[in-house]
Amino acid sequence: MTTSPTLVDQIKNQGNIIRKLKESKSAKEEIESAVKELKALKLKFDETKPLSSVYKFEKEKVDYLLKQRFFMDQSFSIYGGVSGFIDFGPMGCAVKNNIINLWRNFFINSANSVYEIDCPVITYDKVFEASGHVAKFIDYKVKDVKTGDCFRLDHLISANLKMILKKKHSDVENEKINKILAQIDGYDVNQMQQLINEYKIKSPVTGNDLSEPTKFNLMFSTKIGAAGHLQGYLRPETAQGMFLNFANLLKFNDNKLPFAAAQIGKAYRNEISPRSGLIRCREFLLAEIEYFYDSSDGGKHSEFTDSIQKTIITLYSSDKQLENSPAFKISIGEALDQKIIQKENVAYYIAKIFHFLKKIGINTELIRFRQHLPNEMAHYACDCWDAEILMSSGWVECVGCSDRSCYDLDQHSKHSGISLIANKVLEKPLEKMQEIVKISKRNISRKYTSQTSNIVSKINAMSFDDKKQMCNEIEKIKFFNLKINKDVYQINSDMVSIKTEKFTIHIEDIHPHVIEPSFGIGRIMQALFEHSIRTRKDDENRTFLSLPVISAPYKCSVIPLSKHDDLIPVANLISTNLRKIHIAHRIETSSSSIGKMYARTDQLGIPYAVTIDFDSVRVSPSTVTIRERDSMEQIRIPVTDVCYTLNLIIDQPDSGWNTTREKYGLFKNQINKI
Amino acid sequence: MTTSPTLVDQIKNQGNIIRKLKESKSAKEEIESAVKELKALKLKFDETKPLSSVYKFEKEKVDYLLKQRFFMDQSFSIYGGVSGFIDFGPMGCAVKNNIINLWRNFFINSANSVYEIDCPVITYDKVFEASGHVAKFIDYKVKDVKTGDCFRLDHLISANLKMILKKKHSDVENEKINKILAQIDGYDVNQMQQLINEYKIKSPVTGNDLSEPTKFNLMFSTKIGAAGHLQGYLRPETAQGMFLNFANLLKFNDNKLPFAAAQIGKAYRNEISPRSGLIRCREFLLAEIEYFYDSSDGGKHSEFTDSIQKTIITLYSSDKQLENSPAFKISIGEALDQKIIQKENVAYYIAKIFHFLKKIGINTELIRFRQHLPNEMAHYACDCWDAEILMSSGWVECVGCSDRSCYDLDQHSKHSGISLIANKVLEKPLEKMQEIVKISKRNISRKYTSQTSNIVSKINAMSFDDKKQMCNEIEKIKFFNLKINKDVYQINSDMVSIKTEKFTIHIEDIHPHVIEPSFGIGRIMQALFEHSIRTRKDDENRTFLSLPVISAPYKCSVIPLSKHDDLIPVANLISTNLRKIHIAHRIETSSSSIGKMYARTDQLGIPYAVTIDFDSVRVSPSTVTIRERDSMEQIRIPVTDVCYTLNLIIDQPDSGWNTTREKYGLFKNQINKI
Repeated sequence: MTTSPTLVDQIKNQGNIIRKLKESKSAKEEIESAVKELKALKLKFDETKPLSSVYKFEKEKVDYLLKQRFFMDQSFSIYGGVSGFIDFGPMGCAVKNNIINLWRNFFINSANSVYEIDCPVITYDKVFEASGHVAKFIDYKVKDVKTGDCFRLDHLISANLKMILKKKHSDVENEKINKILAQIDGYDVNQMQQLINEYKIKSPVTGNDLSEPTKFNLMFSTKIGAAGHLQGYLRPETAQGMFLNFANLLKFNDNKLPFAAAQIGKAYRNEISPRSGLIRCREFLLAEIEYFYDSSDGGKHSEFTDSIQKTIITLYSSDKQLENSPAFKISIGEALDQKIIQKENVAYYIAKIFHFLKKIGINTELIRFRQHLPNEMAHYACDCWDAEILMSSGWVECVGCSDRSCYDLDQHSKHSGISLIANKVLEKPLEKMQEIVKISKRNISRKYTSQTSNIVSKINAMSFDDKKQMCNEIEKIKFFNLKINKDVYQINSDMVSIKTEKFTIHIEDIHPHVIEPSFGIGRIMQALFEHSIRTRKDDENRTFLSLPVISAPYKCSVIPLSKHDDLIPVANLISTNLRKIHIAHRIETSSSSIGKMYARTDQLGIPYAVTIDFDSVRVSPSTVTIRERDSMEQIRIPVTDVCYTLNLIIDQPDSGWNTTREKYGLFKNQINKI
Repeated sequence: MTTSPTLVDQIKNQGNIIRKLKESKSAKEEIESAVKELKALKLKFDETKPLSSVYKFEKEKVDYLLKQRFFMDQSFSIYGGVSGFIDFGPMGCAVKNNIINLWRNFFINSANSVYEIDCPVITYDKVFEASGHVAKFIDYKVKDVKTGDCFRLDHLISANLKMILKKKHSDVENEKINKILAQIDGYDVNQMQQLINEYKIKSPVTGNDLSEPTKFNLMFSTKIGAAGHLQGYLRPETAQGMFLNFANLLKFNDNKLPFAAAQIGKAYRNEISPRSGLIRCREFLLAEIEYFYDSSDGGKHSEFTDSIQKTIITLYSSDKQLENSPAFKISIGEALDQKIIQKENVAYYIAKIFHFLKKIGINTELIRFRQHLPNEMAHYACDCWDAEILMSSGWVECVGCSDRSCYDLDQHSKHSGISLIANKVLEKPLEKMQEIVKISKRNISRKYTSQTSNIVSKINAMSFDDKKQMCNEIEKIKFFNLKINKDVYQINSDMVSIKTEKFTIHIEDIHPHVIEPSFGIGRIMQALFEHSIRTRKDDENRTFLSLPVISAPYKCSVIPLSKHDDLIPVANLISTNLRKIHIAHRIETSSSSIGKMYARTDQLGIPYAVTIDFDSVRVSPSTVTIRERDSMEQIRIPVTDVCYTLNLIIDQPDSGWNTTREKYGLFKNQINKI
């Protein structure tokens, strides 16, 4: 990121000018004018900075709006609530459904061989024993030694260090803490214990001492069956269901690689310290893909198009993090060429994730892809890039893109005894030299007649390595003493020998590798709401949600100006016609003023409002107004054009409104001011 | 249900004729001809019976197809599987998504004021304590006294009685057992224990004795939080989340009744004896509506249209069940008039449920609405009609339609202390006479000067009933001895008196009542598959799924006749264009014969197939064939017409194919025979 040095010079220079003006006790007006110029320069300088360093979040306004308009609420709130659980109201639910529908279109319907499946949440414990989750899906907790309150170790340390930073310290000390904060995701438990000791961290609630860190498995557990013999866990990711069905899916795809499984469903993590809102819930919605491929092709992807390649993204590689250097912008193609991203299929998914987030309405300047630090990776991953989105609480992981290699399929093959592999018919049969041990029954029988079959069985039962060792010994000392029960048989090179032979291989076993893009839908929604809130220029308190049409809970409001008997039938007719063409809408039935009704439809993020006023029924032909949420511009069109027009502007979110406004002209009257 | 008596007479008569022909040793041809006639008469008679009494299910073929084509599979099967859990493969998942989308359109988008919300599965125990599920959501289980195997009491008895029926018994005994079977859903635990004793029922696995029945709560439980202090249950229905959000939803609907909440999500019941397939799963998908209304309007529904009223359905009222009489056909309007269904809103939902099931492809002759028996109702319901669908395993409850009255909201008001009620502004204010207790401070102070405020406080703190009793005593014996600590004060009618006064009431409290249609999506899917399977006339083993377009997992297949390089680009181009107009489709990439590819697309239930053959690339203009699954008819159309044509026939499932066939004419060539 480069900033204009001349601008910095200008600011310094202007500062000097002001200082001199003050020293020389110049006229007040002169000083004020110079200060004004300095401010303008500083503003210009701010604009050269990345948006992520200057973006202002309005968390309180967002929270208030989301609760007020029932996008969401704390679950079980009439019973005091339980943290980590969120209810989606009608508006939150509609936004969620829109995001899911777009996800399906984007990642399943518009891609080759991606198959959605749906597996249970309650999962047999054998699955998570094999996957490693029973042993390794843990966080460390520390307890307040007096109250028993639990805290998540890494979060407690981060929070404490950030508090320390806020107080005045030496630059050296601050830099040290900043470095720890940048790398803490990679710390092990001992390093974290050292920090607890070094910074004398206590319980943040009581100030009491803390216990030693202990492991805490994040999976919710439950018993299955009336007898309670079977142990189940609520899945912490949807992935395992897709691995378990690998053989079914491979068959469905005509036994060919690559293909992908997709799953959209709830996942559960018994977080030690859940956050409020949608950032760290105990129950949350995931949309995951497992892309199975033959790693011998080097990770190519058949849909790696030119437009994918040219996608510009912000990357924050592990190198840069360890150097404490900033993230940087680069095209997907260059990132591959420079081997910052190793595989084309990972790069493909990173680009697709970026385009998806952009399409639903995330501010692309507030997205970066951060590579996991070597110690930070989940137990199943060998590389991972997180799509992080900047929100009021900082950079938050919203989509993970992990390279799980062949870890999971191999684990399940091992634990279940069922081989989860694919076959590849080789285009050219391979010729391969291979050592084999040859046993001559005839030569054995010449010496040990009746014992031949026993001896052959014994040798056959030996491992290849043991057989090879036997042959080596024969080569050295001309014989090998084979013991069967209490008898010893002398085996020589006529009986057993090792040879290298040529084999022709037509079919090869493949242990498929897996790339996993995993979307936390709730977190993406939280980002969307935080990026979409706006306030009207003339009224700080008048907020609205500038959601794109595709994410908006309803596409339009139908608003009768009053509850007058003449207006309602027109509203109902418009509603009936909109239903026919499947435009999600809402009739305003309150008896509020038109201003309040517009304020509400704006807060619900509804992009358009059709208003029926008295001109709609008293002037022929009947006309209504359509109002655009962000600009508050209005047009007046015949009632008969409503469906066609709305369909057009909804289908063409970039240009539709402008085209339509040009066609009908702006409409201005007293309503327009509201 | 009436059958033609003349037809029965004809059959008897024809039987007599044959008997006589045989007795008189008539010519073989003559006898055979008479037998043929008898068979024709019997077939004609069968056709007069309700379909439900003659329908033949092909469960094995369905099961084989569903597994073979990965509509679904037993979960965790590589680890031996756990009963009660099912994985949906790509085809099952697509059918499920189609059903859910249609459900949303049908019950949410096309209705007034229905709001979808989404609440967590893990639910705070206080919720289920209030709702009564902790105490009452139970089944009875019996244990094999030696092995500890558990069985669900009612199912064990039913299965045993059905076994007994299969053996020869007296008509009296059979009739008795049939009566028990018809009413067993209404039996209590003591009645069931008696049956165990009477029929000497043992463990079906080992023949061992069984334990006394014990209660078993069907909710899965889990602990919430790192300290494990909070008890949670996995919800056995989605309903409670909607009750908990009543106040939020009421506000969202401008504080007006009626409105409805809807929720689509997983629910969990730890079944004692889950069945295979989708009938009784431990984890299953529900789509539920809670329709909140003011019961003082008698249960009217504003969308009770003429077409709803005229819907003909099969009803099986509790009266008829107790009489052991059959179900009967009736229109929704008549069922209301005859008070078989009590409320218009219940009747409305019954009709909507019927139309929905019809639309997704359920055979309407195999649907009946069965009223619950008085003892059978869930603890929260005061009336309930189940939409039952006939399947291979008998009549299965697939949609419940319960009248939950104000049970749930009242329970939550009581347990949470937060009043979950609505207000109604009365059109005409009500004048109401009400008794009130009047306290005269002045008269008290005349006698007890300094103690006045203590006395007034004491009286105010009394309940209304206690105050009334005090006044009654004053009326009888002229005074009342009020004790405060050790002092006694004599209260007379000048100090405290009871009066009846007129009040004007403008706003009335309403305790909303609730109608709950609750859809078991898995069961509906099982019925759909069982009703849709067909076999080709010329080949018993060649099955296909005759799914309606709206439920079909893909709308068409794109099939290159061979893997020849010339054909693939045409297939890809068609696919790209179909994606643009959002027609879900699949390109066949296998190298099977065209016959096998058609067989597969038929088994996947895909209604249309576009086939690219060599004429598509060698003859100009380029043409392809479109084949209809059920009739196997084909047309040949220009490539450029494919999207338009498919869009038309998909949009008009009733007439589109016929119109298109008439336009282009039937195409016949060697492919047609396959």
